[in-house]
Order: sequence, then C-alpha cells, then structure tokens
Amino acid sequence: MTSVALCTINKSARSIARLCQASRSAHGTADFHSFVARYSTLRKCAFLPGGKWSFIRAGTRQMSQGSPGRISLGRYGKGVFLAAGAAAVTGVLTAGVSHFQRAEMATKVSKVEEEEGDMKSFMSVPVTDIKVLEQRKDAMCTRMEMLIMETQAAFCRALEEVDGGTFRVDRWSRKEGGGGISCVMQDGKVFEKAGVNVSVVFGNLTEEAAKQMRSRGKVLKGKDGKLPFCAMGVSSVIHPKNPHIPTVHFNYRYFEIEEADGTKQWWFGGGTDLTPVYIDLEDAAHFHKTLKKACDKHHPKYYPDFKKWCDNYFYIRHRAETRGIGGIFFDDLDSPNQEEVFNFVKSCAKTVVPCYLPIVYKHLNDSFTPEEKDWQQVRRGRYVEFNLVYDRGVKFGLATPGSRIESILMSLPLTARWEYMHEPTKGSKEAEMLEVLRNPKEWI
Amino acid sequence: MTSVALCTINKSARSIARLCQASRSAHGTADFHSFVARYSTLRKCAFLPGGKWSFIRAGTRQMSQGSPGRISLGRYGKGVFLAAGAAAVTGVLTAGVSHFQRAEMATKVSKVEEEEGDMKSFMSVPVTDIKVLEQRKDAMCTRMEMLIMETQAAFCRALEEVDGGTFRVDRWSRKEGGGGISCVMQDGKVFEKAGVNVSVVFGNLTEEAAKQMRSRGKVLKGKDGKLPFCAMGVSSVIHPKNPHIPTVHFNYRYFEIEEADGTKQWWFGGGTDLTPVYIDLEDAAHFHKTLKKACDKHHPKYYPDFKKWCDNYFYIRHRAETRGIGGIFFDDLDSPNQEEVFNFVKSCAKTVVPCYLPIVYKHLNDSFTPEEKDWQQVRRGRYVEFNLVYDRGVKFGLATPGSRIESILMSLPLTARWEYMHEPTKGSKEAEMLEVLRNPKEWI
Repeated sequence: MTSVALCTINKSARSIARLCQASRSAHGTADFHSFVARYSTLRKCAFLPGGKWSFIRAGTRQMSQGSPGRISLGRYGKGVFLAAGAAAVTGVLTAGVSHFQRAEMATKVSKVEEEEGDMKSFMSVPVTDIKVLEQRKDAMCTRMEMLIMETQAAFCRALEEVDGGTFRVDRWSRKEGGGGISCVMQDGKVFEKAGVNVSVVFGNLTEEAAKQMRSRGKVLKGKDGKLPFCAMGVSSVIHPKNPHIPTVHFNYRYFEIEEADGTKQWWFGGGTDLTPVYIDLEDAAHFHKTLKKACDKHHPKYYPDFKKWCDNYFYIRHRAETRGIGGIFFDDLDSPNQEEVFNFVKSCAKTVVPCYLPIVYKHLNDSFTPEEKDWQQVRRGRYVEFNLVYDRGVKFGLATPGSRIESILMSLPLTARWEYMHEPTKGSKEAEMLEVLRNPKEWI
Repeated sequence: MTSVALCTINKSARSIARLCQASRSAHGTADFHSFVARYSTLRKCAFLPGGKWSFIRAGTRQMSQGSPGRISLGRYGKGVFLAAGAAAVTGVLTAGVSHFQRAEMATKVSKVEEEEGDMKSFMSVPVTDIKVLEQRKDAMCTRMEMLIMETQAAFCRALEEVDGGTFRVDRWSRKEGGGGISCVMQDGKVFEKAGVNVSVVFGNLTEEAAKQMRSRGKVLKGKDGKLPFCAMGVSSVIHPKNPHIPTVHFNYRYFEIEEADGTKQWWFGGGTDLTPVYIDLEDAAHFHKTLKKACDKHHPKYYPDFKKWCDNYFYIRHRAETRGIGGIFFDDLDSPNQEEVFNFVKSCAKTVVPCYLPIVYKHLNDSFTPEEKDWQQVRRGRYVEFNLVYDRGVKFGLATPGSRIESILMSLPLTARWEYMHEPTKGSKEAEMLEVLRNPKEWI
C-alpha cells in the first residue's frame, strides 16, 4: 500500500532530520551514508493511522487575481482550473468541492484503493472523476493517474516536512477534457520555489501533432485525420534558497493514442536530474546510484543509456554547457511491454524522494557567503535560459493557445541573475562546477 | 559636426542634472517641460576643445575569463573580439591597438571626419579599417558605420554622465569578416545594467538565409547560390535600478546584399521603445512625442504606422501583454530612396538621448518601496521571457554557431523574478500598469 510509504516518509523525514542535525555537529557529513541507509529502511515501516483530508491555506505570498474566484487557495478550495504541464490548455472556472462532497468521496475512495495510491493522501481529488476511475480500475490510464497523484503527494509531503511550509494547491480543469493540479510553495524557509504539477488531458490530435508528440516521429493513422489521445504526467522543479542544496527536476508521463482501426499506441517518458550550484561528489554519487539501482532492476542498459540521453537533452547549446549534472532521461519507451515499462516508471517515480531528500537534509544548515549566493543566482539565470530556449515541454506549452502559463512557468526560479562576461576565477569552486558542466562525467 | 552634439550632451546633462535636482525640490516635476526644452537647446551649443582619446578601466565587476587576454578591459585595450548583435559569429583574439597606433589614427581621423561623426569621440576605433572607410567615405555602409558609432558614443557618454560610472568596452573581431564593439556598464549607481552594442559584419549568405533576413521574404539571386552581404547596427538595452526609471531599448540597422547581376539590395530597420515599471503619463507623452517629431520630419505615416508595428512586435503572446508602452519599430525600409531612409534613421538615432535622458533625470531621486522594487523584478522577468522566447535577433543569434553570446544576452537584466500566480491588487498602481500592457493605447 502506497499510503505506508507516504506517511512513513514524513515520519522518517522528521526523525531523520533530527538525527541528522544532531549527529552532523559531532560527526560532520560522515553520517550521510547511515542517514541514507536509515532513510531507505524507514520508508518501509508500517502505516500509522490518522491520515485525514486536510484543508490548509498555503502560506505563500498571493496578490488578488482581479477576477474573483480565480485563485484556489487551499486543497479543495474554490476554483477548478486548467491542466498544467506541456499539454495544458485554457482554464475554465467551475464550482469547487464542498465538505459534504469530500466526505462522500472519502467513502467511495476505499473502493478504488489500488497498489498505486491511497487517495486520502493525495494533494487533491484526482483529475479524472472517481466513478470513471472505479469503472476502469485496471486500465493503464487509471493506474498511471494514481501513480502520478501519489508521486506528487509523496514529494510534496516530504518537502513540506523539511521546509515547515505548506503547498498552495490549484486545481484546474480543461474545457476540451481533463485538467491538472499545481502545487507550489514559494519563498519558504528552505525552498525559494517548489512546484509539483500533475496534469491529465485528453481530446483529439491531428495526425501531424500526434507525429510530433513521439520523439521517433512514428506516423499514426486517425479516423478522418483525428486521433483520440490521453496524456498525463507529474513534473516538478525545486529551487532551494541555500546554494549548497541543488535544484532538482523530475517528470514522468504517459501517452495513449487510438488509431482509426482501434489499436492503441502508448508510450512512457520521463527522467530525474540534478542541478547543483557547487559540486559535491558524495551527493552526485548518491543521486546517480539511487537512479541506477532503480534502473538496474528493470534492464542493465537503462541507466547508462538514459544517463547519456539526459546529458544530451539538458544541454544549453549556446553556452556549451549542460544545465546540471544529469540523472536519467527517456522518451517514447514502449517495450518490452506495457506492464514492464509501467513498473520501470513506477520504480523511477518512487526514487524521487530518496534521490533528493537526503541531499536536502545534509546541507540544510550549511552556511554560505554572499558570493556563493551570487553564483547560485547566475546559475539560476542559465536554468531560465534552458527552460525558455530549449525545453520541449515549455516551448510546446507556450505555443499552445490557452495554455495554463503559470503551471508551465512554475519551473522558473523565484530570482535569477545575468552578469555580463561572468567567468569564475581559475581554480575556484565555481570554476570546478563549470568544468563539470562543460564536460559531463560518470558519477558511479 | 557630430562632436558638437556629443560633447554638449555631456555638458548639458551635467548642468541640467544640477538645475533639475535643485529646482525639483522647490517645484516638483512641473519643471520637466522646461528641463526638456533646455536640454534640447543645449544640445545645439558649440563644441568645447579638449576632447581626447581616453583609456579608462571599467569600474564594473569582472571575473577572470580563464583564457588570458579574452577580456578587453578598456578602450583600445588588448583583445579584439567578435561582432555582437543578431548576426554575431565566433570571436577570435587579435592584437590590440597601441598608443602609437592610436596617435597615428588620430592624425588620419581628421581626413574622414564626416557629417556622421567625429571618431575621436567614439567608444573605440570603428570596426572597419580606417583606410577602407577613407577610401569609400561616400558609401552608405561608411556613413551608416559612422552613424552607429556616433550613436553608441553619444548614448554611452550621456549614461556615464548621469550614473558617474564608466562603460567597459569590449572590441571583437569576426573571423569571417567584420566585428563589434560592446559597451556595458553593470551595477552602477543609476543603472543595474546598461548595454550599448555596435556590430558590423560581412561575408556571404545563402539564398535561403538572405530571404529570411528580409521581413518581406523577397527572393534574391546569388552567384552560385551565394550572396555577399554587409549588416551593421547599433542596439542597446538599459535597465535602471530605480523602479520609477523605465527600461529603454533601441536598435538601428542597415543591410546590403549584392545579387548575381551586381545590383545591390539594401534596407534599414530599427526602433526605440520604452518599458516602464509604473506608468507615468508625462513620460509616455514625452517619449512618444519626441519620436513622432523625428518621424514627422520624414513622413506623416511613419509615426502611426511604426508605433502600431512596435506594439505588435513587442508582444508577449503567452501573457497576452506587450513588453512595454512601445515607441516605434520598422523593418525592411527601402523607399522612397536610400538617402531619404538614411536621413530618417539618422533622425531616429539622434532622438535616443532626448527621448530617454530627461526621463532618467526626472526620476533620479524618486524614493521607492521594497514592494515597488519587487514589481520591477517581476516585470524584468517578463522582459527575459520576451527576449528569450520571441525576440528575432536573440533567437537568430543563439541559433548561430559561434555567436558572441555575451553581446546577444547583454539585453537581459542583472536580476529578475518569477512569482507564481502574481497578479496585482485591483486598483493598484501595478494593476494600472498591467492594464496598459494588456491594452496598448495612444500616448499623444
């Protein structure tokens, strides 16, 4: 049961945070390994009762939206909005979910509890109607929607635990079908900006658009040129305040397209990658090892192939440097079979917290200088350059009329800096970081 | 003689700054009109002797470039680099210009003193060899190069005067032909980042590339598919620190392409536009009136047509808002004849200082709150979005292998901010600004 993992992540995070902070002063970072080991163990502990629907206002700064009701301030608050992510389109305002409805749902939820998640722990009700999910509970689109909802919740809870802040949750619906749930925590104690986004969209694609959606550009035959499709995913970018805590990004997605003869084309894509401001060999090794372990359970070629793909994709061509130190990235994955690929994606999604949170806790109280903060801001500028100039998802989203821009651009940092002719001093820690970005290396 | 204007701009700016600051405390902004009037008058005063080749180190923050000699720290310092601007390509290091050479040039300069500029006042020696300029002193490419050099110098001197800082001057040469001069002042007293860039590039274009360069996409016939071309321009973006001083951008450029039969195709492009953080009706009217006056001298349709073109071009589609309050923008202008279009472009280039500097002086000592600074930073974020996602020059530059990235991206602000779901409070000054950006209006 996923609820076990979700709740124990929070519990373990709390106790480990204490453990870690207490021991670091005495033992320094030598405890990192035992910390990671203990973290992994605790994730397997039993579920503790008491999980409830929560209704918490986000603590982040907000300004009135102008048109009343356009801001959904809390979980299940007023305002249901458009799907976020690459495939997002215009948001429309519908009625929120009342306390009564929530109670009704809580009853229904038990019927669709699956291996993929316990709805009670989700950041919001799923995008797809509960009744529909119940009716097709064995379908891949249901299982994937549960997985992305669970991944969002697990990651958000772990981040809330370490930050002490609360995610603002915006639910969006899409006129053409589907919707999204955007969770953002801004200007927190630990995180400058943390966004975790789920979107589930469906409708019809033109043959040309369908072809473009697949990285291998396979031609698909539609009925009268139209192809019913369903696309869903979870994506996240976390920008911490402390320059010694790296930025992390992950995205796991699933596509389904129905051809004229009724055959279903499907594929998965995704990846997790790290963007440190300063290189920490231990962090890099931990991050990549955790990903490799998840990959190796499914295929020995996955980690090396997807690591290379990641370095190639997150490349800022005009700077001749990678965005960060990589991780894994894959797209258009449809073999050996749906069940096995889904299991691989599930393994990846479940590594997000153990990949990142130990690194966050390790550097939580690292001191830093104004110069180090400056360098972080310069690197943030590069992050913006990649996301606005090269990222396929962002480009597709911005070019799609009516996209939910705020969800697409929540990946941008709260603050960034561009210094003319900025070049670190030879031999400095900044130059060391740049060297790695200019020459991607093996971390394991 | 242009040197008249150049030197008196500085002189007038100094005295007007004092005049303005002294009178503002007693009379507030009511003196703005007399200030503008006096400013214009003083520009016509006589040249005062004493103009010398200067060799000043820029006061801006610099970090070592790694490869020795890659940073040119002063005027005529070591390092000659690649052309900046849209058509920039890989920089190569060549020897700098010695004191002796400068002295030699100073002698030669007198021979090519033209209506377009006095070389002694330039920020650097022109990109094209002095001998070549002398040989073809009546050619449009010589006259335009002198004009862009003079515009760069006039604007830089006026900004140095108000800021108290000094521009860093980087000279670049381009392996394939031509080069550029990038002047940047960063983290000054008044300006967060001020960049004024000149580039003069030449070489051969493919027919396809030549077609893309013209906004009307006219097909040009080359010899063996190749078309000798020459492109030059001056471009600038100024981001002040005080949120009550607007950002300004201008760009004036000239293209020449030779077809297989020897006929020369040529056209001019350019524009000047203002991006305030808060709307000031008086500033907006002054800015647009100054541009209109320059346009009206040449054609009554220029201002209304180019004002509309500007609003359409500087449009952030995904935000459904303009970048600023516009100005003028035109491209592919080749009629009624070369002389008349050049005279129009000259008029426009000469309005840059009188368009912007009075606004800078007016708001120089305006106090501002942290919230106003925040709003400025959010607007800076939008500026980055426009420049990285839509600006044709930036896109072309980033996509061209070997471009001088630092010159292309000097238009980005020193700092920017992205707040999730940021929306000003109804009725606020921020909402008023946004309203204008969402519904471009007539300012005269």
